Amino acid sequence: MSTDLYKNSWEYFLCQYAIPVCFANNPLSGLFILIGIFIDDPNAGFGALLCSFIAIMTALFLGQPDNIISAGLSSYSAVLVGTVTAALYPAFFNQPIQPIIWVYMAIATIFCVLVGLGLSVLFSQSNIPVFTLPFNITASILFLGLQARGFKIPVDIVNVPQEVVNSTVSNVDWGSVMYGCLLSAGQAYAVEGVTCSILTLIGILVCSPLLTISSFAGAVIANFTALALSSGPYDAIYAGVWGYNGFLATACILFFMVPTSRTTALAWANSMFATSIQASLIPVFKQNDLPIFTYPFCLASVLLLGLATSSIPGEQRVEMPTIP
Amino acid sequence: MSTDLYKNSWEYFLCQYAIPVCFANNPLSGLFILIGIFIDDPNAGFGALLCSFIAIMTALFLGQPDNIISAGLSSYSAVLVGTVTAALYPAFFNQPIQPIIWVYMAIATIFCVLVGLGLSVLFSQSNIPVFTLPFNITASILFLGLQARGFKIPVDIVNVPQEVVNSTVSNVDWGSVMYGCLLSAGQAYAVEGVTCSILTLIGILVCSPLLTISSFAGAVIANFTALALSSGPYDAIYAGVWGYNGFLATACILFFMVPTSRTTALAWANSMFATSIQASLIPVFKQNDLPIFTYPFCLASVLLLGLATSSIPGEQRVEMPTIP
Amino acid sequence: MSTDLYKNSWEYFLCQYAIPVCFANNPLSGLFILIGIFIDDPNAGFGALLCSFIAIMTALFLGQPDNIISAGLSSYSAVLVGTVTAALYPAFFNQPIQPIIWVYMAIATIFCVLVGLGLSVLFSQSNIPVFTLPFNITASILFLGLQARGFKIPVDIVNVPQEVVNSTVSNVDWGSVMYGCLLSAGQAYAVEGVTCSILTLIGILVCSPLLTISSFAGAVIANFTALALSSGPYDAIYAGVWGYNGFLATACILFFMVPTSRTTALAWANSMFATSIQASLIPVFKQNDLPIFTYPFCLASVLLLGLATSSIPGEQRVEMPTIP
Repeated sequence: MSTDLYKNSWEYFLCQYAIPVCFANNPLSGLFILIGIFIDDPNAGFGALLCSFIAIMTALFLGQPDNIISAGLSSYSAVLVGTVTAALYPAFFNQPIQPIIWVYMAIATIFCVLVGLGLSVLFSQSNIPVFTLPFNITASILFLGLQARGFKIPVDIVNVPQEVVNSTVSNVDWGSVMYGCLLSAGQAYAVEGVTCSILTLIGILVCSPLLTISSFAGAVIANFTALALSSGPYDAIYAGVWGYNGFLATACILFFMVPTSRTTALAWANSMFATSIQASLIPVFKQNDLPIFTYPFCLASVLLLGLATSSIPGEQRVEMPTIP
Repeated sequence: MSTDLYKNSWEYFLCQYAIPVCFANNPLSGLFILIGIFIDDPNAGFGALLCSFIAIMTALFLGQPDNIISAGLSSYSAVLVGTVTAALYPAFFNQPIQPIIWVYMAIATIFCVLVGLGLSVLFSQSNIPVFTLPFNITASILFLGLQARGFKIPVDIVNVPQEVVNSTVSNVDWGSVMYGCLLSAGQAYAVEGVTCSILTLIGILVCSPLLTISSFAGAVIANFTALALSSGPYDAIYAGVWGYNGFLATACILFFMVPTSRTTALAWANSMFATSIQASLIPVFKQNDLPIFTYPFCLASVLLLGLATSSIPGEQRVEMPTIP
Repeated sequence: MSTDLYKNSWEYFLCQYAIPVCFANNPLSGLFILIGIFIDDPNAGFGALLCSFIAIMTALFLGQPDNIISAGLSSYSAVLVGTVTAALYPAFFNQPIQPIIWVYMAIATIFCVLVGLGLSVLFSQSNIPVFTLPFNITASILFLGLQARGFKIPVDIVNVPQEVVNSTVSNVDWGSVMYGCLLSAGQAYAVEGVTCSILTLIGILVCSPLLTISSFAGAVIANFTALALSSGPYDAIYAGVWGYNGFLATACILFFMVPTSRTTALAWANSMFATSIQASLIPVFKQNDLPIFTYPFCLASVLLLGLATSSIPGEQRVEMPTIP
């Protein structure tokens, strides 16, 4: 029994890396993705390990039942706190990550677990999962708090002459757009890299080839929506930054609903909707120098999964998705 | 039976124009209002027709039961997306409405229906209607998204010398204030015009003379609240922009509650409350160049209708308001 | 019976001053605190009396049952509208409080009661109290509305040379930090004064010595969190402005939960969490010149009390906390 628990712990430990993005409760998927993160961004990989360890400790301290822990409920948002903070910190604070930041991340992870449990209680009545909202809330507080603490080094924005930029754009490089669709998978962890993206896609492939194809198509739809809702230069689209919310939004609907042609259409609509929300919220978040995280995915999916579950006659929610 | 359905479709088609403002499920009301909108702002009228057509198609595609469609549940917010976007676009984007904008509006309408169904599920537990929240959410995303796409032409604000303006004001023209109260009815569709306003009031009169008088009194109360919470010049008050949230807020309480002297007092309090929220949120929304839409009406009414339903002993909610 | 009611009215009248901060339903606590507020800030004391009177009248007009009134449900947020507006108005509007402001406060109090009842209905399903959210919502609308009305006198910010300030700080005066912990108790009413703080602590001591010690420790934890999340100069910490949310957050958990070592740990975590939220939201609120009020306390406590109630096995919610 102890061996069994030991084995289960390892399985769980790996699962939580796959859940936030792949909606896959499979240790092999988790292993692929964790390796991918480590290859493309070692800091993000270290963040994932650190924060998932803290999250498990917190859940044990709170006396959470083992089966909840092993379903990853308490810590899959924590993994994102680790990878996203480690990956985005240099760009948003204009300096490399310092040792003290890991301490802040560890403390934020404890609260991420608490927020996740609290939100689950509030959401439980509507039968809607909390998605990655605990991560979004915690990461927002962490980023704004670090700004208030004075970690952000101000940079003169002289090197972005807006008008010149506007005149030279308008040409869309379609090859780069498709490359951006591929990068979307890794960007769900805020990691920009082709290895991480391919290993993430392989991780989902292990669970469900259909989910992999549909989600990739969701990322493509997201990027086309982004082209329709933004103006050049399209560097962010080429980097996959505009695809990950649509990628997640598609995977989420098809994970929770029995896949039919109508739910697939709804999943792709969710991708468009999430990307539209992303386009509209980015300037609002920029006023506080905050990245958009996965808020667009969460907002769109709360509404459309609620709709899908209760309002569409003839469609069915998957009985026991076990996660997340 | 087919003739019946055909007749019902027309009735429904007209009803949805009356519901978002009049809370009237009456085709004649809808006809009056649609004519009023077309006379004062043909673009807004075309937007109403376009978006209601798209909304019905979306609802049919989703397999919504006929009676829900014919109760207007799925599309009365869509009508507002059409009229408000068409009416406000020129002022907020500093250019006339282009053909491509109609395409964006049509796509936004699809999401408006989805958001409306999703929100209904989330709100159903509290027995609170979604009011025009689907419209508010969709229109916010649409306006912010169109800004991000670069449709907004920046204008030098040289022609509004703030200090000169402040020195010449302070005189309230009471005739214009009363005229503004009348215009409030049309401003609920973002249409500024006396014909549309009078036809809207006639549309409600057809259903309930009492509701008409109370709601007009609600607009008067809203405008006096606005005088107390804003500083001159009062052009916006004269144009009815400060009255429509109070107009809607009053009509909404008296539509859902059995009218008594106490619920009428509450309805007028709701008008004051909605207008106060409008005064406080306008500067917040202006930071993102966003109109206030009917958020103040929705926020005030969610709280006060919740209160009216459950907490006041001796008052009663109308049994079956059928809409909205 | 009439004497009994008379006596009960007085008890209730005093209780409501103690409830919003002490979570103490004890007239003696209320008396201590009201005296403390009057000594340190007579305007805030007058605001407390005015707004609680208006709140009781509103509740009676609405026909609220006596036992709800006497449990303070309808008016403890109103007390805060009175004290906080009166105390913060001079600093946020750069002028002394004018007679007309009392009229605005009185009207805001009516809406505070309505908002409180409405929110209670919405929150009742989750078995989560509304805390001081009615106060936060009402005070936000009041402050933003008064700004829109033109009461705010703009001040040149010449006298805060940012860079000079940044260079001279970094030394923490630990004595002042501890003094700030003491001042936190009074700052829950936005009153900065040692008399008010000591009388508030005595007021809680009358009810529960354990709650007093734990809550004071919560304020200490909050101030240490603030040191970790802000950069000097630390004047606001010395003034108790960073401690009151943690003070309230700790008291709240220990009031609603049966105190154990684990709930005490959770209460202190709630203090850290509330203070982190305060650090992150202050710059966001500052964009609209809005004080943070007790939003951080409310947000943190909604999540962590929800968690504490439902998710932690072996812990128990207090059966009948009667308030708030």
